[in-house]
Amino acid sequence: MFTAGFTIMNVPINENYEKLDGGYLFAEIAKRVRSYEERNGKKPLSLGVGDVSLPLSQCVVTAMKEAANEMGRAETFRGYPPYFGYDFLRGAIRRHYARFGVLLDDDEIFVSDGAKSDSANFGDILGDAPVFVCDPVYPVYEDANIMAGRRVTRISAAKENGFVVSAKDFSAESAVIYLCSPNNPTGAVYDKNVMSEWVEKAKSSGSLIIFDSSYQAYIVGDEPRSIFEIDGADECAVEISSLSKTAGFTGVRCSWTVVPKNLLSRGRSINEMWARRQSTKFNGVSYVTQRAAEAALSYAGYEECRKNIDYYMENARLIMRALSEKGVYHTGGKNSPYVWAKCPRGLSSREFFDAALECGVVCTPGSGFGSAGEGYFRLTAFNTRQNTINATSALSSIL
Amino acid sequence: MFTAGFTIMNVPINENYEKLDGGYLFAEIAKRVRSYEERNGKKPLSLGVGDVSLPLSQCVVTAMKEAANEMGRAETFRGYPPYFGYDFLRGAIRRHYARFGVLLDDDEIFVSDGAKSDSANFGDILGDAPVFVCDPVYPVYEDANIMAGRRVTRISAAKENGFVVSAKDFSAESAVIYLCSPNNPTGAVYDKNVMSEWVEKAKSSGSLIIFDSSYQAYIVGDEPRSIFEIDGADECAVEISSLSKTAGFTGVRCSWTVVPKNLLSRGRSINEMWARRQSTKFNGVSYVTQRAAEAALSYAGYEECRKNIDYYMENARLIMRALSEKGVYHTGGKNSPYVWAKCPRGLSSREFFDAALECGVVCTPGSGFGSAGEGYFRLTAFNTRQNTINATSALSSIL
Repeated sequence: MFTAGFTIMNVPINENYEKLDGGYLFAEIAKRVRSYEERNGKKPLSLGVGDVSLPLSQCVVTAMKEAANEMGRAETFRGYPPYFGYDFLRGAIRRHYARFGVLLDDDEIFVSDGAKSDSANFGDILGDAPVFVCDPVYPVYEDANIMAGRRVTRISAAKENGFVVSAKDFSAESAVIYLCSPNNPTGAVYDKNVMSEWVEKAKSSGSLIIFDSSYQAYIVGDEPRSIFEIDGADECAVEISSLSKTAGFTGVRCSWTVVPKNLLSRGRSINEMWARRQSTKFNGVSYVTQRAAEAALSYAGYEECRKNIDYYMENARLIMRALSEKGVYHTGGKNSPYVWAKCPRGLSSREFFDAALECGVVCTPGSGFGSAGEGYFRLTAFNTRQNTINATSALSSIL
Repeated sequence: MFTAGFTIMNVPINENYEKLDGGYLFAEIAKRVRSYEERNGKKPLSLGVGDVSLPLSQCVVTAMKEAANEMGRAETFRGYPPYFGYDFLRGAIRRHYARFGVLLDDDEIFVSDGAKSDSANFGDILGDAPVFVCDPVYPVYEDANIMAGRRVTRISAAKENGFVVSAKDFSAESAVIYLCSPNNPTGAVYDKNVMSEWVEKAKSSGSLIIFDSSYQAYIVGDEPRSIFEIDGADECAVEISSLSKTAGFTGVRCSWTVVPKNLLSRGRSINEMWARRQSTKFNGVSYVTQRAAEAALSYAGYEECRKNIDYYMENARLIMRALSEKGVYHTGGKNSPYVWAKCPRGLSSREFFDAALECGVVCTPGSGFGSAGEGYFRLTAFNTRQNTINATSALSSIL
C-alpha cells in the first residue's frame, strides 16, 4: 500500500529545462488566444503563427489517396519505411535541388517529419560546441540547444544591418551557427556575397553552419535557394528544409536534411553520425506522406504550389500597403511570407500583441524571437485574402 | 579558394557515439540480406525484422482517404496539428485504455510518430540517471541511452527465470528501468504479480519505469495490458505504445506515450517536462495518420485488427510446431508474435543466422539483442501464411 500523493520518485532530471523561458512562444500565444475566445465567444483573425490556409494541391491529395489504397491491398502494402526516406522521394528531392544547380547524392538526403524536429535533433550528434543564433530567431534553435546544456550566444540582426547578420560580426572557433534565409521572423534574405562570407568564415574557424532553407520557395530574386550554391559549403554546412510552407504541408509533416558526405569533423563523418542517429531514434516517414511529398515536388505539383505562393505574396503586399499607409516601418514581405514591422507609438511587442488581440487580430510579438525583436511584431501572409483584408482593416485603428 | 578535401571542421561531436556497437542491428541485417539478394538474384523469405505483411484494414484506408479529401478542400483543410495529438485521437486512446480498466485524462496522452522515437527521445528530459535494461533487449533502449552518455546496465532474462526479469534482481536507487511486455525479442509476458513487484520496487527505490506495451494486443490471458493496471504505477511509470503491431501501422507511423500527471521527480512534473520537450522538438503527427489511428481504435477497426492478429498467431503456431517436431527448444509465440528459439547443434546466433540465410530464410540472431541472447534466434509471425510455411520448411534441414 502506498499513501496517495506521497511522492518518492527521485530520478535525476534534465536540469537545463530550468534555464528555459516560461513557455515555447507559440504555445504561449495559443494560450492567450484561447482565453480571448472564451471571453469573446469567437476566434480572432490570425496573422500570427505561420500556418498556411490554402488546401493541398489536388495532385497531392490524389497521391495520398492512391497511397492509402496501396496500403489496403496485400500486393502493394508497405511496412516500415526506409529510415532515411524512400528512393522515389530522395530522388525527387535530388532533382528539386538540381533545378537551382545543386547536385546531391541520394544518400546525402535524410527525409524526416519536420524541419523543427531536425533543427532540434541535430544537436544529438554534437558535443559541447558553442552555439550562435541570430537575434531575432526562430525559438527552436535556441531552446533545443539550451535543453542540451549548450551555451547559446545571440548575434543581433537589427535594422542597422538590414536584419542580416554578417560573418564579420562572428569571431568564435569550432562553433555551430544557425542561419535561416529567407529569415523567420524578419523576412530578410541573404545574398550570395553574405552567404559566401559565412562559408569562408565557417571554414576558416572550423565551424558548422546549420542552414534552414524552409522558405526558399518565396525567393523572387537571384539570392541562393540553398547554401550548397556556395562553393565549399559541402565541407562546413548542413541544410534543413521542408514542404510546410512550399506546399502547405504543415499538417502533412515532411521535411529533409542534407548532410554532405564531404562534411567531416575531427575525423568523423557527420553524414554517418546522422545516419546512425536517425536509424536508432527515428523510424522513417509515413508512406502516404512520402508519396504526397513526391507529388508536391513533381512538375505539376510545383506549378500548383507556385500559385498558392503567389496568392500568399499578394496578401503580403496588402499587409505592407496597410502599414505603409500608416507610415509604420516594416521590412520582409518580398522574398518571404513574413512582414516584420515596428510597433507604433513606442509600444512594446507584448503591448502591441495585446492591443491587436483586443482588435480581434493575432500577430506575433517580436520580443518572442529574442531581445533584438523587442518593439517589433511579425505578420504572416498565410491567411485567406478576405481574412487578411479584414485583419489589416481591424488593425488600422492601432497602427 | 579552398583546397579540395582539406578538412578544417573542428566542431566538438558527441563522443558517446564511439561507444556504440558497429551498427544498429536491423540496419546490419538489411545489409547482409542485400548481399544475399545480389548473389542469388532473389529475395530471401523473412521471419526476421518484425514487420507486418497484411494490408491495412479497410476502415483505416477509408479514414485516410477521407482525411486526404478534407486536406484538399479549403473549408476542411488542417494545418499544424496540435503538438500532443488531436482531441479526437487522444479521446480514442483514452477510451482504448478504459476497455481494460485504465482511466486516463487526455492530457496524459502524447501522440507521436513511433514507439521507437519516444523510447529513444524520453531520455531528453532525464539527467544522468543510471539506466537498466533487460538482456536480451530491443537495442533502441540501450543505444539511445549510450548516445546520451548514460551508464546502461543489463539484467539477464535467461531461460532459468522464464525470460522474465524480476524486481528481486534489481537493487539500484533513482534509476530508469525499461520493461517491455509482451517482450521483444523473447515473447515473454509479465503477469500481475511480477509487475506489481516492479512498481513496488520502483517506488521504494525512487526509480522510473519506462514501460513498452507495443505488443499488448497479443495477450490472450489475463496478464496486464498496461502498467497502469497496477496500483501506484501512475507515480513511478510512463508507458509507450504503438499501433505498428496492433493495426499494421509500421508504414503509417503512429504511437503514443502516457505520462501521468501524478508523476513527479525532484519536485518537477514529468508530464510538463515531456510537454515542453515535445512542443519544442516535435511538431505533431500528420492529420491523415491521426484519422487512420482513430479508425483503427474504433470498434469496427478493433474487430478488423483482431482478425489480422489471429492470422499472425496461427503463423506463430506453425513456427512452433516446426520447431517442436525437430525438438528445438523455444518460448514465446503465445502472447506474442515472436518465437524465441535455441540454436541447434550449439551454433552461435550469427552462425545460425548465416546458415538460415543460405537456406533462403532471414531470422534475427539472438546475440543482436544482447549477450544473454547468444545461442538463440528470433522468428516472427508477421509474414504471410504461405511464406511462413515455406520458410519453416526451408529451415527444417538445419534445425
